[in-house]
Amino acid sequence: MNTLWGGRFDGDMDDLMWEFNASIDFDRRLAKVDVQGSIAYAEALRQAGVLAAAEAEQIVEGLELVAKEIERGDFSFESTDEDIHTAVERRLGELIGPLAGKLHTGRSRNDQVATDIRLYLMGRLDVLEQALVALQRVIVDRAERLLDLLMPGYTHLQLAQPVRFSHWLMSFFWMLQRDRERMVDFAKRVSRCPLGAAALAGNTYGLDREALAKALGFEGVCYNSMDAVSDRDMMLETLNWGAILGIHLSRLAEDLIIWSTKAFGFVLLDERYATGSSIMPQKRNPDSLELVRGKTGRLIGNLTALLTTVKGIPSTYDKDLQEDKEPLFDTLDTLGQLLPVVSGVIDTMQVNEEAMLAALDEATLATDLADYLVQKGVPFREAHHLIGQVVKRCETEDLSLSALPLEAYQEISSAFEESLYEVLDFEASVEAHDALGGTARSAVVEQIARARQLLDS
Amino acid sequence: MNTLWGGRFDGDMDDLMWEFNASIDFDRRLAKVDVQGSIAYAEALRQAGVLAAAEAEQIVEGLELVAKEIERGDFSFESTDEDIHTAVERRLGELIGPLAGKLHTGRSRNDQVATDIRLYLMGRLDVLEQALVALQRVIVDRAERLLDLLMPGYTHLQLAQPVRFSHWLMSFFWMLQRDRERMVDFAKRVSRCPLGAAALAGNTYGLDREALAKALGFEGVCYNSMDAVSDRDMMLETLNWGAILGIHLSRLAEDLIIWSTKAFGFVLLDERYATGSSIMPQKRNPDSLELVRGKTGRLIGNLTALLTTVKGIPSTYDKDLQEDKEPLFDTLDTLGQLLPVVSGVIDTMQVNEEAMLAALDEATLATDLADYLVQKGVPFREAHHLIGQVVKRCETEDLSLSALPLEAYQEISSAFEESLYEVLDFEASVEAHDALGGTARSAVVEQIARARQLLDS
Amino acid sequence: MNTLWGGRFDGDMDDLMWEFNASIDFDRRLAKVDVQGSIAYAEALRQAGVLAAAEAEQIVEGLELVAKEIERGDFSFESTDEDIHTAVERRLGELIGPLAGKLHTGRSRNDQVATDIRLYLMGRLDVLEQALVALQRVIVDRAERLLDLLMPGYTHLQLAQPVRFSHWLMSFFWMLQRDRERMVDFAKRVSRCPLGAAALAGNTYGLDREALAKALGFEGVCYNSMDAVSDRDMMLETLNWGAILGIHLSRLAEDLIIWSTKAFGFVLLDERYATGSSIMPQKRNPDSLELVRGKTGRLIGNLTALLTTVKGIPSTYDKDLQEDKEPLFDTLDTLGQLLPVVSGVIDTMQVNEEAMLAALDEATLATDLADYLVQKGVPFREAHHLIGQVVKRCETEDLSLSALPLEAYQEISSAFEESLYEVLDFEASVEAHDALGGTARSAVVEQIARARQLLDS
Amino acid sequence: MNTLWGGRFDGDMDDLMWEFNASIDFDRRLAKVDVQGSIAYAEALRQAGVLAAAEAEQIVEGLELVAKEIERGDFSFESTDEDIHTAVERRLGELIGPLAGKLHTGRSRNDQVATDIRLYLMGRLDVLEQALVALQRVIVDRAERLLDLLMPGYTHLQLAQPVRFSHWLMSFFWMLQRDRERMVDFAKRVSRCPLGAAALAGNTYGLDREALAKALGFEGVCYNSMDAVSDRDMMLETLNWGAILGIHLSRLAEDLIIWSTKAFGFVLLDERYATGSSIMPQKRNPDSLELVRGKTGRLIGNLTALLTTVKGIPSTYDKDLQEDKEPLFDTLDTLGQLLPVVSGVIDTMQVNEEAMLAALDEATLATDLADYLVQKGVPFREAHHLIGQVVKRCETEDLSLSALPLEAYQEISSAFEESLYEVLDFEASVEAHDALGGTARSAVVEQIARARQLLDS
Repeated sequence: MNTLWGGRFDGDMDDLMWEFNASIDFDRRLAKVDVQGSIAYAEALRQAGVLAAAEAEQIVEGLELVAKEIERGDFSFESTDEDIHTAVERRLGELIGPLAGKLHTGRSRNDQVATDIRLYLMGRLDVLEQALVALQRVIVDRAERLLDLLMPGYTHLQLAQPVRFSHWLMSFFWMLQRDRERMVDFAKRVSRCPLGAAALAGNTYGLDREALAKALGFEGVCYNSMDAVSDRDMMLETLNWGAILGIHLSRLAEDLIIWSTKAFGFVLLDERYATGSSIMPQKRNPDSLELVRGKTGRLIGNLTALLTTVKGIPSTYDKDLQEDKEPLFDTLDTLGQLLPVVSGVIDTMQVNEEAMLAALDEATLATDLADYLVQKGVPFREAHHLIGQVVKRCETEDLSLSALPLEAYQEISSAFEESLYEVLDFEASVEAHDALGGTARSAVVEQIARARQLLDS
Repeated sequence: MNTLWGGRFDGDMDDLMWEFNASIDFDRRLAKVDVQGSIAYAEALRQAGVLAAAEAEQIVEGLELVAKEIERGDFSFESTDEDIHTAVERRLGELIGPLAGKLHTGRSRNDQVATDIRLYLMGRLDVLEQALVALQRVIVDRAERLLDLLMPGYTHLQLAQPVRFSHWLMSFFWMLQRDRERMVDFAKRVSRCPLGAAALAGNTYGLDREALAKALGFEGVCYNSMDAVSDRDMMLETLNWGAILGIHLSRLAEDLIIWSTKAFGFVLLDERYATGSSIMPQKRNPDSLELVRGKTGRLIGNLTALLTTVKGIPSTYDKDLQEDKEPLFDTLDTLGQLLPVVSGVIDTMQVNEEAMLAALDEATLATDLADYLVQKGVPFREAHHLIGQVVKRCETEDLSLSALPLEAYQEISSAFEESLYEVLDFEASVEAHDALGGTARSAVVEQIARARQLLDS
Repeated sequence: MNTLWGGRFDGDMDDLMWEFNASIDFDRRLAKVDVQGSIAYAEALRQAGVLAAAEAEQIVEGLELVAKEIERGDFSFESTDEDIHTAVERRLGELIGPLAGKLHTGRSRNDQVATDIRLYLMGRLDVLEQALVALQRVIVDRAERLLDLLMPGYTHLQLAQPVRFSHWLMSFFWMLQRDRERMVDFAKRVSRCPLGAAALAGNTYGLDREALAKALGFEGVCYNSMDAVSDRDMMLETLNWGAILGIHLSRLAEDLIIWSTKAFGFVLLDERYATGSSIMPQKRNPDSLELVRGKTGRLIGNLTALLTTVKGIPSTYDKDLQEDKEPLFDTLDTLGQLLPVVSGVIDTMQVNEEAMLAALDEATLATDLADYLVQKGVPFREAHHLIGQVVKRCETEDLSLSALPLEAYQEISSAFEESLYEVLDFEASVEAHDALGGTARSAVVEQIARARQLLDS
Repeated sequence: MNTLWGGRFDGDMDDLMWEFNASIDFDRRLAKVDVQGSIAYAEALRQAGVLAAAEAEQIVEGLELVAKEIERGDFSFESTDEDIHTAVERRLGELIGPLAGKLHTGRSRNDQVATDIRLYLMGRLDVLEQALVALQRVIVDRAERLLDLLMPGYTHLQLAQPVRFSHWLMSFFWMLQRDRERMVDFAKRVSRCPLGAAALAGNTYGLDREALAKALGFEGVCYNSMDAVSDRDMMLETLNWGAILGIHLSRLAEDLIIWSTKAFGFVLLDERYATGSSIMPQKRNPDSLELVRGKTGRLIGNLTALLTTVKGIPSTYDKDLQEDKEPLFDTLDTLGQLLPVVSGVIDTMQVNEEAMLAALDEATLATDLADYLVQKGVPFREAHHLIGQVVKRCETEDLSLSALPLEAYQEISSAFEESLYEVLDFEASVEAHDALGGTARSAVVEQIARARQLLDS
């Protein structure tokens, strides 16, 4: 018979049902914050006059003992512990006797678990933010060191225009910067304290919820008790944030996986981030990056799972909501692995300058050639069409743009002059893209400076 | 042969491929913002010295003619219009001749479409915010008018504790308030201008991107051209926002669908929001609410679709990204329907006071009875257990809590006294929950006041 | 340095990368089938002449020792075991020495893991099918015992027409029957053996793949080695099957959760499948059913996760595919819990006949009344309209259909006669629905007979 | 006031609600099957004696007129048509008068729409199967013609082992073959007739449901009326089938997109399936394939949408189910585009033999070299390790495997002899993989023969 809620029940739960119902296997990682919440709650009960000072003190001491057991890893869970709240209260009772039964006054597991998960989440987000910033730093550092390196930029994975490798690398800085901004935004909504909402109707013991929220480090409180026990938005926001972050990393991974092929050869992953094959002795596979890409699937799946679970259920608390924790924990854990692995990959990979230069086909300068005609007064759309014909002719005759003789150019348009060949220079092309956010050296240097400022603030 | 990009091509696209590739069927709704973006771009080209003043003027006049045709609905699309950008440029050419070909100087469809979609989104979000606020007002108004009405609060859909109907209603105000906060947060990231990123490498014509962004009403610019043409975060954020908002509305719908049953009878939807059956003449079905609940599925599906599409594709622009628009438009359209329908439902539904009162079973006062024992010095956990036995006894003897004689209570605990019966009062119970965010009148009044402040600010 | 594939590597993997890359934490449950596959493979190598008879014997004996250690639970995993294949091969080497190194001849982990997972899945599906059939039996048994019980049928959760409770219950039998059919269908595709595909190019040692498949209990082989190592369809089919099965159970759960409310009171869950509250002593919550409904979210999330992971990755084997196992295992485990819990709930719940009868409002006979007019020659559409007016009048005057006097009926249509009141009988209505698949006793009895046949075949 | 169900209603629906509720915009494509179903139903009513022969004849004639209007495209929808059923019945009334009102006798829109959608689906699946088979034929044809062509096989996108191009191509044949098998499987469940289930309780007019099902071309009937109106499994199966098919095509697209890069250059898409850029004149982008990959996102999104919509709703019919059509139609339409486009791409793409041969690095023969040592009696695991060292040495000295002198080999293992160099032959390697399903010519020829058999049966 359940000691926490079994008063009106005659018998026990079915064994399979017990296992099905219990959350202790996955919510035990909330142990630390559960005790932290209870200590603050005991103090709040004292201030509200529900607990005498001595009682509160004894409870807090008991809880601190529990906290130590947890920290030392010698807290022992019993098979009758339904969830972490039950486990902690049971243990407190063993340590300080029936007084433990006063701790839950005016509190329900509904507001307790909502508080726990928010406290836990705040802690994890702090750590993930550091990992995110660390990755951003690795990116900016390499971008700065490789500023001179040119490579072909691609769209549709086809040769597009020459760009600085650093410009490509910095594009990921900005994606991650948005991830940081998003985290700051939703962290405000994580940081609201539901404690005192009780089961759904609120607290009857004159609890000072704002003081309690402050004591636990929250920025504010939840303003409606029925919403407070039911709100899972901050988890959905975390899961969505994780999915978008995963997408950024998956696109970085895709680029690098393709560039690690023999055909491209732009980068070589360090051995510490590659693996071999059990059958093919020559293999050096980019498993790290493939896992980064692959794990984005689970980040999206976790989001879908929780969205689907909470959709269309009655308001306030339903047991369906117990299903919130596993996808949340999985996303946090996954990101906790992804971020440092990607940092390591970026930090240690070899960049093959020669391969990048060799890949810089002159076809990537076709737009510059069109711009050249524009400067001669040809409307861009016509210029584009003329250069299209130039390109076709070069392909047919298997010539590069610079190898096509002037007469051939002039057959296509009389606006061409000898000076056209000066345009066919990769560095010149890159440097011409000097508007804000472009790939010219000055524009990339400015990006890096702005990025450093954001990292240091 | 495509006039926009066909210079190097010999022949035409396959017919099926044309249809498969063209986006004109769904991107034509961007017509207005596409022209708006082009007008600002022409002006920026003039400032950069690319267009002479007279040229810019002529282009802008032509674009304004196009805008008028669009507004009047007599812009005619041709079967050769691949997308909205092509259509507008084609029409501009018909109106002003070859000069139209200068407009695209230094611009790519990659940055153009990214600009269009952001402009479009900013406009739609403004309208949706108004619809959201309108729904919040309907909620606060009804909550205020029905402040006296008590009803059973439920958790797990089982009778829990008495609450004010207004308290329940206000719980949705706060969900929607978070939706508003979220919109404010991500709207900052929508409001960044990619124009000038061109295909991926940036602009070569000395464009003042910050001035251009300002002219179009953006708060800032995208700082990296490769990211600028590739970033779809703001769409994912919109889709996620829509999914969470949908979840809130789906839970509201679920509550009301259940309360509209004959068995509950708490509310009766107005005929304007109900439908009948083609076979059962007595029917009055809550179709409006079922569709609200059902359409949350598509909101989640749209999010999944775009997350999946962008996961793991190479960076910068890939044609996969053309798949961004349909889920985005569908979510915006769906929310544009959901919000006013829910407002209408809430505003017009009949609330059945008698049914709610009749449903107020005394079992919902069991917690108050436990609190009573706590005041007598019994630790809460023990009090809970004792009241559990009281409840079981009442069930066995088929008695209500107030009908169980004092002796019976005292057999269970000597702490019970005659005064226990005073606790068995629904209004008293509700009023006892007077901590911040609780269901007592004062606490709900405070919520409403806070809500009004948020609505008026 | 990795013993399995490290020959060409100089150093070790990064520690975090090791953890990130290793699958041993979740693939160890494949231990038994991994050994089973290796035993058959050793035998096949012997038949192909790659292993001498004595070598094969020694390897098989070694593997059988490993199998015993696994079964007894005293197989000890090392921190250097990257995955289950490595672990088993490592242990085999400890037991029989360098000869163990011959086992992997012509085999890759790519075909090995694909074989393992299929063997594992075949075993788990057998068990789940039994659980599914057990649930079907519980349904048919209760349906048979409760054949006399009438209740209101609902559409849109509004009163529709009277039905037999057994008819409702049997509707779930048929959903589950489709789930069984689906399992039979996709089990054929699980039962194809990829072993011998090696890394991707096939086997060079003259392996008899069909004999090997047969030895392992497969129905056939995979016909293309590049597809064989890459195919995850059978997992996607399993996950989709699980999601649909989950949906069926979630709808059953939704019905019963609503019917367990005080307002409906149609069913009462047995205490073994209900739980209480930590704060509200009167509570008896249908947690079992809420978890059934809630866990459908994870079943859908698992499907989304794997679909997203495999979408758009290069063909053959990529490390992304390592992400296939966790969602698969989670779905199998979840279903392994859901099915017996639902069986227990259905088997033990109390059905409240009085509440169902009391809920049988005469409005549910409106269609029968329309049918009555049809028999009098009124076209159905007109009859429907006339009865609509009858219903409206009854509501206005707060009368039941049978209390409305004949004159009132005749004011609405002269086709009404005294005999109309005979139609207003719940049992008669139910019995009139006697076409195949209807709710009349004979039709339900026929369903049950057909169901028993399907269960016994 | 709604003529179909408005008898008991006083007023009209809210305008926004009307638009929100109406399905006519998307269900009008069911017009043809709706009439088809009604014709069969009229006939069934005649057989059941509900309609006189003359009445049935007149109704059928009217419906045939409606069918012709639909076919000719001059059926005109009215703003008051809520859905396709209403529209057809309204038009029938205009054509034949009040007798039209007899058609809906004993039928509900619940069973009617379920019948329509199944009829529609059967028709669409037939067409899609043909498109699927057409793609399979294109694959087999090209595979047969290109049988001699060798290329490097990849795993993890890294060079693995030489394979026949045809072997790679055929791997997709088998994926598509599973898609065909799956379609056959679930088509059985589409082909069950719900007509006669009425609203939920079944038919009261002695309808011969089995005859009716047969008349409409169904294989069987739905055995439970409550399930019949509620079952959406066959749609979920279709959506899941479409998602898996999409995944196969997306992986094909990914391979070809990568192989179309300048760096690989293995294939060149025909101009009919490529597009250019509005700014870069040299561009020839594989938009067709990127859209194939991108659209897989919507196929997955559609599945998620419907799974989420039906999860946890009450059994029988809820209006949420109206949300089933749009994702279904979108998936059918999308597949109807994807399949012929992919056929066209495969059929017309240029395959660059030289590029493939040039990419055949000797490192892909490392496994063959290990097999060589195995033949010399070295256990495979040791052989693998030794070849790993060979590869490392070759990389360090920048030599190919065949350029490394024998002494160097022998320093690593004394088992090496001059004959090792014979192994270093791509054709020999491919031919060695001659087990069933391997890449040797004989094995591929066998695959093709088996495939032709499957296509012809």
